[in-house]
Amino acid sequence: MDSCSDLTAWAARNRFAAYNGIRVTRVGPDGAEGELTVTEESLNPMGLVHGGCLAALADTVCGTAVAARGRVGVTMDCRMDYLRPASGKTIKCAAVPRKVGRTVAVYSAELTDDGGKTVAIGTFSFYLTGQTLPRFEGRMDRTARGEKC
Amino acid sequence: MDSCSDLTAWAARNRFAAYNGIRVTRVGPDGAEGELTVTEESLNPMGLVHGGCLAALADTVCGTAVAARGRVGVTMDCRMDYLRPASGKTIKCAAVPRKVGRTVAVYSAELTDDGGKTVAIGTFSFYLTGQTLPRFEGRMDRTARGEKC
Amino acid sequence: MDSCSDLTAWAARNRFAAYNGIRVTRVGPDGAEGELTVTEESLNPMGLVHGGCLAALADTVCGTAVAARGRVGVTMDCRMDYLRPASGKTIKCAAVPRKVGRTVAVYSAELTDDGGKTVAIGTFSFYLTGQTLPRFEGRMDRTARGEKC
Amino acid sequence: MDSCSDLTAWAARNRFAAYNGIRVTRVGPDGAEGELTVTEESLNPMGLVHGGCLAALADTVCGTAVAARGRVGVTMDCRMDYLRPASGKTIKCAAVPRKVGRTVAVYSAELTDDGGKTVAIGTFSFYLTGQTLPRFEGRMDRTARGEKC
Repeated sequence: MDSCSDLTAWAARNRFAAYNGIRVTRVGPDGAEGELTVTEESLNPMGLVHGGCLAALADTVCGTAVAARGRVGVTMDCRMDYLRPASGKTIKCAAVPRKVGRTVAVYSAELTDDGGKTVAIGTFSFYLTGQTLPRFEGRMDRTARGEKC
Repeated sequence: MDSCSDLTAWAARNRFAAYNGIRVTRVGPDGAEGELTVTEESLNPMGLVHGGCLAALADTVCGTAVAARGRVGVTMDCRMDYLRPASGKTIKCAAVPRKVGRTVAVYSAELTDDGGKTVAIGTFSFYLTGQTLPRFEGRMDRTARGEKC
Repeated sequence: MDSCSDLTAWAARNRFAAYNGIRVTRVGPDGAEGELTVTEESLNPMGLVHGGCLAALADTVCGTAVAARGRVGVTMDCRMDYLRPASGKTIKCAAVPRKVGRTVAVYSAELTDDGGKTVAIGTFSFYLTGQTLPRFEGRMDRTARGEKC
Repeated sequence: MDSCSDLTAWAARNRFAAYNGIRVTRVGPDGAEGELTVTEESLNPMGLVHGGCLAALADTVCGTAVAARGRVGVTMDCRMDYLRPASGKTIKCAAVPRKVGRTVAVYSAELTDDGGKTVAIGTFSFYLTGQTLPRFEGRMDRTARGEKC
């Protein structure tokens, strides 16, 4: 299996993320990036992006960063801080590793709106199971769109 | 506007929750309850309910408990602990107030699976804006299904 | 080594806790209890018990609950919620297990003042190293005072 | 009252921090820095710096950053992630603002050891009361040592 089909396969398996307009756009040893395409179905009663939707974006991007290193990681716990009302067309998320140990990994996530303002930050802890995955890196959006690698 | 239509109106406005099979089933002064109907679209790549989906369930139930007291509450931050793999048909969530002040409210959430096992716990902090809502209490699932109050 | 001297030995090794008037008073399979004797050296600039002191109390009681099960546990992360101003003579803390797995344990802590009001709550995650400790249970305050077991 | 005596007065009022060898060394509009002088009384049973001591350092530095802006801030909640064993002579802490609103402020803290390695990170939320303080900035260590400003 080449790394391109790995990416496509992994993205296709995250049903909740895909259903909610969340996709990972880049992964590498320094972390990962992703984005949420905001629709009516992303909103809370105030008409802003739902906190749960932002948490899902951050969890997905951090979790993919872990997976891209070749290890299955299970989210143990997280903290999200909602700093400003989130709205617009797209919310971007960047995840960076703070610790990657033998059995535990910790990532920081920063979420920004169309204007580049930080709308939320998060910290996610992962338990690394013994299971291995094929390592993958690169631009996931290309493969997710079905383009040739 | 009677309290029944309040419930229906509020539930209808939470587009993200409804889209993801999340609904609040009871609200009262002692907290609120809700549930997630698990579908393929609730799952992560491991085939378990996505952590972001569980966070969304907890945020929705806690947030509705705040709203039911007649105040608009904005989630400031949260912590989720994912204690056991979440699967099955339904995930239930119970939210209880730990503090309800003039401008800040803190709720604890406990999420259980079909067998009654706790799969996750969470803590949510809300900032209470000056805006008021009509107080509502009762069984939201009845009204959400469009039944007569 | 009998279980009584285990308790005394463990308590004596927690220099930071002892220095700050923090001690564990009871441990058992259902959790642990402890307390902080408030002095001038416990206070923040507002004249209230310092949040870091409350975090230290909760961490110590949860950590001892883990240790009492016979495993060395290292705190991975925590969340503290400061619900009400903490003052008075003594702050009590009760820790209960939310999950005790093979490599991860999660405890909830509740801190109360002299009037029994909850001043803070916390959640602590521990990584269980391979190291084992002698299991101990019972009333630690007795042993800590040097009484005969 | 000049800004120098403000600093000295504020530091002197944080009894818990001073008692534990914690002091703030610099404050400014971009955050604050501080450090813990590690002694035997800073240690947990494993001989490492106690997590509660690190939480106290982070809370103190973040809280002083808030105070230096001229507002009384009360810690609402926090998360600490203990990334690596903390030991050595000094633990440094840098706090940066992530949000400073009208009633809520959020700060990130990063704690490093003698070798510059990050041993812990934290996020602290503060409720800003109506009370005002004199704004102060500068090198607190100088004033704390009683030197002439």
